[in-house]
Amino acid sequence: MSESSSPIFTWERRVEFSETDAAGIAHFSSFFLYMEQAEHALFRHCGWTIFPFRSEGASSESAAVSWPRVHCSCDFKSPAFFEDQLSVDLSIERLGNTSITYRHLIRRDGTILAIGRVTTVCSRIDPQTHQMTACPIPERIRDRFQAEHP
Amino acid sequence: MSESSSPIFTWERRVEFSETDAAGIAHFSSFFLYMEQAEHALFRHCGWTIFPFRSEGASSESAAVSWPRVHCSCDFKSPAFFEDQLSVDLSIERLGNTSITYRHLIRRDGTILAIGRVTTVCSRIDPQTHQMTACPIPERIRDRFQAEHP
Amino acid sequence: MSESSSPIFTWERRVEFSETDAAGIAHFSSFFLYMEQAEHALFRHCGWTIFPFRSEGASSESAAVSWPRVHCSCDFKSPAFFEDQLSVDLSIERLGNTSITYRHLIRRDGTILAIGRVTTVCSRIDPQTHQMTACPIPERIRDRFQAEHP
Amino acid sequence: MSESSSPIFTWERRVEFSETDAAGIAHFSSFFLYMEQAEHALFRHCGWTIFPFRSEGASSESAAVSWPRVHCSCDFKSPAFFEDQLSVDLSIERLGNTSITYRHLIRRDGTILAIGRVTTVCSRIDPQTHQMTACPIPERIRDRFQAEHP
Repeated sequence: MSESSSPIFTWERRVEFSETDAAGIAHFSSFFLYMEQAEHALFRHCGWTIFPFRSEGASSESAAVSWPRVHCSCDFKSPAFFEDQLSVDLSIERLGNTSITYRHLIRRDGTILAIGRVTTVCSRIDPQTHQMTACPIPERIRDRFQAEHP
Repeated sequence: MSESSSPIFTWERRVEFSETDAAGIAHFSSFFLYMEQAEHALFRHCGWTIFPFRSEGASSESAAVSWPRVHCSCDFKSPAFFEDQLSVDLSIERLGNTSITYRHLIRRDGTILAIGRVTTVCSRIDPQTHQMTACPIPERIRDRFQAEHP
Repeated sequence: MSESSSPIFTWERRVEFSETDAAGIAHFSSFFLYMEQAEHALFRHCGWTIFPFRSEGASSESAAVSWPRVHCSCDFKSPAFFEDQLSVDLSIERLGNTSITYRHLIRRDGTILAIGRVTTVCSRIDPQTHQMTACPIPERIRDRFQAEHP
Repeated sequence: MSESSSPIFTWERRVEFSETDAAGIAHFSSFFLYMEQAEHALFRHCGWTIFPFRSEGASSESAAVSWPRVHCSCDFKSPAFFEDQLSVDLSIERLGNTSITYRHLIRRDGTILAIGRVTTVCSRIDPQTHQMTACPIPERIRDRFQAEHP
């Protein structure tokens, strides 16, 4: 297990009109989408996918895992507006045996808008029953994330 | 094949805050959600489900079908606001051999806000490949809808 | 200030198809919508509205306030599926001078699916600048919530 | 008035996980978001914004207009999956006096997934009453779009 919080990945995203609400700002739930999308972009950046169960015959990967969330939170500091260009700085706050806790710093240039946290559990999902069972994080993922968090 | 447009089902729905946008009104895409939700409520009202492929081992129904959309449209007449109580009058405009065209009249009391149309095709979906193949509408559905549209 | 956590309001809600994701379950962000919708339903139940700045010339209320979120979190225990009938038990965990912390227990019958928390700050919003300033919770709201949490 | 349908702008967008549904594909309503986002990106590309009524004191533009939709439709040809890289080819099908009809061809490389149409009306919106009144399309917009559609 290791702990750290320097960003390993930054992802950029514009606030879309459909994400705003009648208060004229990005709806608070949108921030959880930004956080998830940054996490998925990190996986793509590493050459992986967070959800390998695509169409044609589910996953071809022998040991496909999924990453259901068990906890997430967000502190909202300042609102985001339509067309704001947001940056999500993603860091790995905790790398457990079967779980990862990400920390997301969402900002517009130097202004911090929100700070989020998401804990996901590496899981094997029974395709018939949708039952999830926690399992150790695959080695290539552990190795990569640990290398960036010495 | 039969054609008609008197409503066979009315579904009520309040505009939620997250569905509004910075223009202070329900985002136009929300109307497509209202239309779909009314269609699903009609199926439940008839004792069916539009999506029988739930968790535990997919469908127990031997001849489970799904209803992908092939076309939908909406004419927007007047905006909807947060907490508006909407009614969706659902009628079956066309009952084909493998497809159904619904017409949705979305109103706030007597004020028509939007008129939508959705064409769905009764399909068998290969659970492995996600490939969809059109198939005849099940008899119980055809019988029920035809009875209401003599 | 008072603290408590017995539910003062229960709100029912069905999982809509558009809220599910490719994992076959309600997307985690949907739970934040359910939580917010329950809070808004509580306000309506009390004869209020959480957002009085509707269309025709903003609010007619002289002292209209809004309730931006400053923190929210959710612990996910078990997934929700399409057409599940959910109950959200809403309790007021903390009634501060300018803020309210709600606790949401989201369940399908007796099965707890998620436990959420939302802290909102009673705010006056400058309609020109969108600047928010915290202000004391209106008396009728404080009185009502305190009466239910002796 | 002029009619054409060669694309004037192409916009790229990845399918996000939250946009998929339990059928394992992008929910049909997501396509309307992609279409709107492409339209907004076109405006940004031209140095404009589709919604100039941002926070600080609404618009500084003396003649700010908005673009409510009066009609939209979509024909669905083939499903989109999580992480698909989509291209939206945007063309102006009709440039009227007060309205624009866009045509959106949504594809994954050479595979056409959907064809959409959106008609928006150039409108002045009363900030007090939210009442919309159609008005002539601003000259700089007309000139630019006509130049690209001789």
